[in-house]
Amino acid sequence: MALLTRIRGPRDLDRLSPGQLAVLAEEIRGFLVEEVSKTGGHLGPNLGVVELTIALHRVFESPADRILFDTGHQSYVHKILTGRQDFSRLRSKGGLSGYPSRAESEHDVIENSHASTVLGYADGLAKANQQLGHHDRTVVAVIGDGALTGGMAWEALNNIAEASDRPVIIVVNDNERSYSPTIGGLANHLATLRTTQGYERFLSWGKDALQRTPVVGQSLFETLHGAKKGLKDFIAPQGMFEDLGLKYVGPIDGHDVQAVESALRRAKGFGGPVIVHCITQKGRGYRAAEQNEEDRFHAVPVIHPDTGLPVKSSGQDWTSVFGEEMVAIGREREDVVGITAAMLHPVGLAPFAKEFPDRIYDVGIAEQHAAVSAAGLATGGLHPVVAVYATFLNRAFDQVLMDVALHRCGVTFVLDRAGVTGADGASHNGMWDMSILQVVPGLRLAAPRDADQLRAQLREAVAVEDAPTVVRYSKGSVGPAVPAVGRIGGMDVLRDGAVDGTDADLLIVSVGAMAQTCLDAAEKLAAQGIATTVVDPRWVKPVDPELAPLAARHRAVITVEDNGRVGGVGATIAQALRDAGVDVPLRDLGIPQEFLDHATRDEILNQIGLTPDGVAEKAAALVAKVSLDPATVL
Amino acid sequence: MALLTRIRGPRDLDRLSPGQLAVLAEEIRGFLVEEVSKTGGHLGPNLGVVELTIALHRVFESPADRILFDTGHQSYVHKILTGRQDFSRLRSKGGLSGYPSRAESEHDVIENSHASTVLGYADGLAKANQQLGHHDRTVVAVIGDGALTGGMAWEALNNIAEASDRPVIIVVNDNERSYSPTIGGLANHLATLRTTQGYERFLSWGKDALQRTPVVGQSLFETLHGAKKGLKDFIAPQGMFEDLGLKYVGPIDGHDVQAVESALRRAKGFGGPVIVHCITQKGRGYRAAEQNEEDRFHAVPVIHPDTGLPVKSSGQDWTSVFGEEMVAIGREREDVVGITAAMLHPVGLAPFAKEFPDRIYDVGIAEQHAAVSAAGLATGGLHPVVAVYATFLNRAFDQVLMDVALHRCGVTFVLDRAGVTGADGASHNGMWDMSILQVVPGLRLAAPRDADQLRAQLREAVAVEDAPTVVRYSKGSVGPAVPAVGRIGGMDVLRDGAVDGTDADLLIVSVGAMAQTCLDAAEKLAAQGIATTVVDPRWVKPVDPELAPLAARHRAVITVEDNGRVGGVGATIAQALRDAGVDVPLRDLGIPQEFLDHATRDEILNQIGLTPDGVAEKAAALVAKVSLDPATVL
Repeated sequence: MALLTRIRGPRDLDRLSPGQLAVLAEEIRGFLVEEVSKTGGHLGPNLGVVELTIALHRVFESPADRILFDTGHQSYVHKILTGRQDFSRLRSKGGLSGYPSRAESEHDVIENSHASTVLGYADGLAKANQQLGHHDRTVVAVIGDGALTGGMAWEALNNIAEASDRPVIIVVNDNERSYSPTIGGLANHLATLRTTQGYERFLSWGKDALQRTPVVGQSLFETLHGAKKGLKDFIAPQGMFEDLGLKYVGPIDGHDVQAVESALRRAKGFGGPVIVHCITQKGRGYRAAEQNEEDRFHAVPVIHPDTGLPVKSSGQDWTSVFGEEMVAIGREREDVVGITAAMLHPVGLAPFAKEFPDRIYDVGIAEQHAAVSAAGLATGGLHPVVAVYATFLNRAFDQVLMDVALHRCGVTFVLDRAGVTGADGASHNGMWDMSILQVVPGLRLAAPRDADQLRAQLREAVAVEDAPTVVRYSKGSVGPAVPAVGRIGGMDVLRDGAVDGTDADLLIVSVGAMAQTCLDAAEKLAAQGIATTVVDPRWVKPVDPELAPLAARHRAVITVEDNGRVGGVGATIAQALRDAGVDVPLRDLGIPQEFLDHATRDEILNQIGLTPDGVAEKAAALVAKVSLDPATVL
Repeated sequence: MALLTRIRGPRDLDRLSPGQLAVLAEEIRGFLVEEVSKTGGHLGPNLGVVELTIALHRVFESPADRILFDTGHQSYVHKILTGRQDFSRLRSKGGLSGYPSRAESEHDVIENSHASTVLGYADGLAKANQQLGHHDRTVVAVIGDGALTGGMAWEALNNIAEASDRPVIIVVNDNERSYSPTIGGLANHLATLRTTQGYERFLSWGKDALQRTPVVGQSLFETLHGAKKGLKDFIAPQGMFEDLGLKYVGPIDGHDVQAVESALRRAKGFGGPVIVHCITQKGRGYRAAEQNEEDRFHAVPVIHPDTGLPVKSSGQDWTSVFGEEMVAIGREREDVVGITAAMLHPVGLAPFAKEFPDRIYDVGIAEQHAAVSAAGLATGGLHPVVAVYATFLNRAFDQVLMDVALHRCGVTFVLDRAGVTGADGASHNGMWDMSILQVVPGLRLAAPRDADQLRAQLREAVAVEDAPTVVRYSKGSVGPAVPAVGRIGGMDVLRDGAVDGTDADLLIVSVGAMAQTCLDAAEKLAAQGIATTVVDPRWVKPVDPELAPLAARHRAVITVEDNGRVGGVGATIAQALRDAGVDVPLRDLGIPQEFLDHATRDEILNQIGLTPDGVAEKAAALVAKVSLDPATVL
């Protein structure tokens, strides 16, 4: 690491020779494998952008020039080159974020890890540069080929292309994949561009040949050259981008620092919008990653650096329970099809895809299309199951509302990584879904508490044919089964707090995976003499009609959810109680409505009080308040 | 109307001669001008698709073949041809919807009036046809060039292009406009296609010329023909669509029934995805519309059919108050820029654009990009004001949350047509914004009650530099000023219910334009002996810290908002009171969380009880309940 340790900032790259740059690239790869194997993180994407990032920082002057990374998990090399080489606590509390972070460095601009946003930012920043007369500053946006399948990228391209005098350099980091291989017409077009090796050679030959060919008074070359798209496009079909008005440079070998630098300098010279198409290899230089067909080590847990194998095997997780049950359902119902937004393996649909290859649709990083095409599939007579990470469903809110719910389509959305996820930071926590989905008329929302409930509720969801259904669950290992001791309406009673036939003091409404926490809290409360009932509504939307009468038989109600508090399950239950004229004092516990810094899930749950002690404390305080004024129950 | 009255369904078109079809088209135009001038509605778009719609219904067999209209307001001709010729109550309660409606006809599929969705539906329906073996059924999607600027269209194109054996016919209804002229790289590309008149002629000449030109052992024609994109693309740069893998037919004169039919039959024969590019003229055949440069009579109120002039002039509306104030702000602050998603005039930004042409950005029908590029502009040092209809902000929820709020960007969103809008039906009511925006950390939301407040709060909003701000207001005329009689914290007291120094019985929290309704309700309650305070929080997010202590001095609280009840202002205030330990009984009045059928705004407000009588009745019932059990105030 002799060279690497001497790089304190981007300008330290300027004086390195080509040979030194090659050595530096190797040192960075070694650093990445060694460090990320110890902490886990996005290894494959960063191994793919080593030379590209070096070239970017040599050609451009960050932060005056803005270097923007889409999705953000491809910014490790950028961190290393901008003074951040302590990866020991990567993605851990107090350590480096796994994404760009403005708190860490003036070289970081975008913290959002949702894909396809970077071109929109770039358009805005370029417009600002123009307005403010910063004509010497360049905006450079690095975006993967996968992220180009997202609609936001298209909207931005359409705008960026409009102004030929507003410089935006779009570096397409084309590794033919997002998590999975990139799909669709665009992928085919990029493949065409990639295989067009001979353009420069053809040009020199063709120009000679054509200039010798007279056509109607001028050379055919001139005729062709004067035509709208020119000769270049005809031979090398970079057409699509140039059709939109964007210059195109490429394809470039993204692992050749000099070639990338040269292309970037050319692009900078144009003074307008330009695409630089770089071909890279995800996982480059790390054999275990290169040989991994599934995702090229897109994101890894803690691994043995030599073998790439996980250090510890994890228990059964929510994702695989869903995956198994989908296969079982698929065997029974031919009309059930799966939809993924470029995340076949991470969302657990791979086993379904393997058994029913004709019944799975990867739509690209395109959650909007996942929802709308699902509405079309449902209208056409099928039952689609759309599996996405909870936080990414935000992208499709309007489509769930207007295309699925308004049209009363039977579409099931399965939300993985719901609630606090932790290590990936603010934009990956799935803390929004149970709030924004509350407003969708007719939608039914299930939060299973354990593996058995996930299986059962998934089946209940796909049985609904005239409304959207949602099943949401946490990240990681699914805990032991939490048995019900009774049933009221559609709700499972997990603990009956009534003593000797008298009503209990407190009702705890437990949502999803909070069940064990609530039961543990109830134990603690019982030890304080507070008789506590714990109920799991199973379906949190609509609110079970039996909940208000049940609440009326208690002196206080506590709701506990792994979701943002505002507009969440607790707030909605409170409204349902008001509507029923039940004014029992209620407190709603959940995630405070803030952007949470990265840490482990447990660290965050502790910090925000979603623990047995935290719940018990809030509950005891409420019961004490009610006891001071015993007439509060209407 | 001799021909028109004989058309009871699409098959009645089959036996008409070309001459009769031309007569029918004229009759339909006459019908549209006569009928829509009486009711108001989307006149211009429908005048543009008369021949196109006739051709569609002659070539395809609806409903087995699915004919889908994007945005839906271009479906009047479709309605006329599918048995719906009573336009007398168009967009009125009980009359025809202004959009497709599945309750009206089996020929209607999509009811959503948000743009750019149709290709997603088409992709889903085509996949369903393939899965279910309906190989004889075709899916046809009509989409405007404006709607192609939306990201959803791109996501869908990328997917549709993937399967060469899955028939989807995409009819691009290219009139160079949405409301306003279409913008961006795509518009330029379409313009190129439109002006490529000579392709067929060039081809026949060029083929001869090139075949006579030997190049390296074969004719140049063969060389060119064998190249990846072929000769056709070189001459007629339809490139972009073919680059994606879509066949392209066009451009076609969309007002020539025979030409359109012929293109559609050719397209049907391909058996795969194909684009049929039709050039049409918005407002065609109606001089007043054709001559209107602003929007070609995109949507009209009741007008004189001869002149096209409105029958009655409307009073000052919210939109124009905003428009005026933006100009005033623009004169004072050079850093304020405007953003519109293809609706410059409807959202009131036209005066600003006229005075500051370099400081306005029309991003296309691209709400996502409006928000993200605004984040970029703010990061770059400007203060963008994004003006959209409230219901369309749903499209940008994720971007407001992750790109604007997470990045603490000073961006102001101005939401017009918030609350009940009425005549445009379920998908145009702006009843979602004050719920989903509650979950966005740091965001501040204002609901001005009158014109003065709109001006003042817009200024307060653009003064915030480290968080998103939202100003939302109703559709139509702004009522008279509603003066404040006092101030508590940041809240305006509109009526002080305290009598002789004692606290009032009831607190009404009035949101935005509900102020007069609440004051009228308070009058009625006072007549019943219920002392009532009315307060307008002005900024409804965050909840004013003075609200909980104020509520604690009353025996009951009623909140009134023109927004969906679930997760709305009332629900959030209730949570804030709980958090402050104030358990005063509260009832939250608002729009029931349902999709509302079209009717006038007043009809709907009556129906849902957002009237002085409705509010007074609910309030009196709550006060009566509290009085029965006087110890309910904690």
